[in-house]
Amino acid sequence: MKNILIIGAGRSASACIRYCLDHAKANQWFVTVADTNLELAQQRINQHSNGKAAWLDVQKPNDRKDLIGRHDIVVSLLPAHLHILVARDCIQLKKHLVTASYVSKEMYRLGDEARDANLIFMGEMGLDPGIDHMSAMKLLNEIREEGGKITTFKSYAGGLIAPESDDNPWHYKFTWNPRNVVLAGQGTAQYMVDGKYKYTPYSRLFKEHHVVHVPDMGDYDAYPNRDSLLYREVYGVEGIPNILRGTLRFRGFCKAWHALVQLGLTDGSYPIHDAEQMTYHELMNAYLPEGAGSVKERMARFLGENIDSDVMNKLEWLGLFRKVKMNLSTATPALILEHLLLDKWKLSPEDKDMIIMQHEIEYELKGKTHQIISSMVMKGEDSNDTAMSRLVGLPLGIFVKLIIEGKITTTGVNIPVMSEVYTPVLQELEKFGVVFTEYKKIL
Amino acid sequence: MKNILIIGAGRSASACIRYCLDHAKANQWFVTVADTNLELAQQRINQHSNGKAAWLDVQKPNDRKDLIGRHDIVVSLLPAHLHILVARDCIQLKKHLVTASYVSKEMYRLGDEARDANLIFMGEMGLDPGIDHMSAMKLLNEIREEGGKITTFKSYAGGLIAPESDDNPWHYKFTWNPRNVVLAGQGTAQYMVDGKYKYTPYSRLFKEHHVVHVPDMGDYDAYPNRDSLLYREVYGVEGIPNILRGTLRFRGFCKAWHALVQLGLTDGSYPIHDAEQMTYHELMNAYLPEGAGSVKERMARFLGENIDSDVMNKLEWLGLFRKVKMNLSTATPALILEHLLLDKWKLSPEDKDMIIMQHEIEYELKGKTHQIISSMVMKGEDSNDTAMSRLVGLPLGIFVKLIIEGKITTTGVNIPVMSEVYTPVLQELEKFGVVFTEYKKIL
Repeated sequence: MKNILIIGAGRSASACIRYCLDHAKANQWFVTVADTNLELAQQRINQHSNGKAAWLDVQKPNDRKDLIGRHDIVVSLLPAHLHILVARDCIQLKKHLVTASYVSKEMYRLGDEARDANLIFMGEMGLDPGIDHMSAMKLLNEIREEGGKITTFKSYAGGLIAPESDDNPWHYKFTWNPRNVVLAGQGTAQYMVDGKYKYTPYSRLFKEHHVVHVPDMGDYDAYPNRDSLLYREVYGVEGIPNILRGTLRFRGFCKAWHALVQLGLTDGSYPIHDAEQMTYHELMNAYLPEGAGSVKERMARFLGENIDSDVMNKLEWLGLFRKVKMNLSTATPALILEHLLLDKWKLSPEDKDMIIMQHEIEYELKGKTHQIISSMVMKGEDSNDTAMSRLVGLPLGIFVKLIIEGKITTTGVNIPVMSEVYTPVLQELEKFGVVFTEYKKIL
Repeated sequence: MKNILIIGAGRSASACIRYCLDHAKANQWFVTVADTNLELAQQRINQHSNGKAAWLDVQKPNDRKDLIGRHDIVVSLLPAHLHILVARDCIQLKKHLVTASYVSKEMYRLGDEARDANLIFMGEMGLDPGIDHMSAMKLLNEIREEGGKITTFKSYAGGLIAPESDDNPWHYKFTWNPRNVVLAGQGTAQYMVDGKYKYTPYSRLFKEHHVVHVPDMGDYDAYPNRDSLLYREVYGVEGIPNILRGTLRFRGFCKAWHALVQLGLTDGSYPIHDAEQMTYHELMNAYLPEGAGSVKERMARFLGENIDSDVMNKLEWLGLFRKVKMNLSTATPALILEHLLLDKWKLSPEDKDMIIMQHEIEYELKGKTHQIISSMVMKGEDSNDTAMSRLVGLPLGIFVKLIIEGKITTTGVNIPVMSEVYTPVLQELEKFGVVFTEYKKIL
């Protein structure tokens, strides 16, 4: 019997838990789901005979160590900054560890210890990061094996609302962490064009968005992520002249979001005075330059928009011109915006989300320039069984199975860029409908 | 004999040292100037019989305590974050402390201990902060004593180049900390207009500058500081409907500086890749959106300027379109800009700086609205004897004299907003030409 511990029972854990339970009987696994919310953990187990729920406050070292000690593999779906607590215990107690989060510097520092103890510590094993690494590495390695010289690597992902559930002028709903959506892009995006570094500061990021065509799906707004240059080494594309990782949104989103950025509403660094007594109308007044006319007219003038433009309609739909109290004490502008959007961009129970991931690669082979567009589109079932939670959770579950089957030889702290990981994981993901379609042409 | 210790011998210390030495013989003072640069400290003392230079590395606790222990009053002109080391020693060794820096929260926490030990810890005793507090409090208290109800308080200051030394298209040279000039305004400016809070984020701060008229001097660009609301309580103007503290620049500065902000060149949070090999021309290319034409043409298009506009001429004069290597390794954009400006905006030996400070106050009295404009203009002698160093140093020196004369009764950690401080300090400053001229009218 192999014992699997999954820490965290939230939405992003559901598909991973389900995968593990579904494979538990045949493979003789026992699955423990631990959470501070015992009831939620119990719901996830749903009285499965090979599973049980456990209450765990991960900040309590003894409880944590005790629980980890009784398992063989740990999947941590905790908030990112808490993984390190679990990781140190896993080193001490000699347990494998899998997470879907970005690997921190602190975590990488455990690499030697993990390797010395023959432990597999795999991070970034979800969707983005996760499936993006695996699908990109498969493509890049195939091209390199063929002898191709890669000149362009662009990779896009978007967590969107499926068109059939799209019923608002922003064409967007929250399908993942709302706070991260509000703060997305802050800092400066760095990428490369024609062998030159390019920098786009946050204040221009959404204004200077570009358009990406997804075959059979249409056009999307795209803006570069901050981290486009981060994976050059690990992907083996150090000298590549064009590299960009970006985020996809429905057309029109970026221009309207830029209006909120321009106003200053996405800043989370200071509290608004008297927020409790303030209306949204007053908040807009506090950010708009002085001038004649109504707040709405001043907004249109500030943005250089007609009063009934698409952007103005989006702002109006959010209720930003309404004389309604915000009812939030000591809130930053970003928190006020998040609070408003939580209501406006809420998934209805039957809403389906949609994930789009697309890689655009160009390479030279035998004197010709080739292009591959590789796209994956997946829709969720409803607001519980989202494409997002499946695509985060399935790679974790599949990877746990690979560890137990002894198919993983790479020890230490890693992200899934090696063939022994991505080949079987992508293969099994296909059974769950995670299919990348390739469109090739010669330019 | 009273022993005064001045820690720091840099430019901002010179006028304070000179003041203390000039008053040393008559008052039986002995002045020690301590610095890590002993030679500089010796130059400041200039073989004065009532002074001596001392070598001090303020990070060495024993040396520091030993030196402080042998004096009665300490003036700290160290970088702001180091004052606290000196302050803790002053508590322990029972010495008074005077600084020209903003009082940190850490420093305020020493307030009770200082008061219990009958010690005077005075911060913000320079120009801005310093003379701004004192001259504003004098005006505000005079109006309140008269029975006036203050409705508007605006306070501006600018460290500028004197018109006779102004020989560049920016009409600006560095007369104080260049790094602070490059990073000025980052964050969100908060102020009040007609009883409403107003917020202007950094990305719009220089674009949305306003114009301030200084009597006999003309018009200046002005932008609100981040801290306009900070002194409401201590100034006793909590309920005031209009409050703004701002910075003055020559006309045209703000629009051109906004171009640098918009590009992203004032960001100090990440390093530029390959900065060592890069030219300014390539740096501009890295920040400009893709497009046709030369870098200069693309810049003009990006900014919505004609190619030969005032803003474009300012950028051209900085050399931003030149194919000249920047010669800086691992530098942030802000550091690259600072490095370039240090050369371009350098004071020549004979250059005179100019300080302008102006308060604009409106108040209701006997059914009428009164306005007072109170302005102070001071020019330096040359690049060594700057108005800036005088206006920072003289209040410190004068305040030291007041302490020794026993004229200060307010103990604890304070800033100079009480009459027993500002009345005699402003009075003596007048002898040094620091004169506020008042223009009153009924609106």
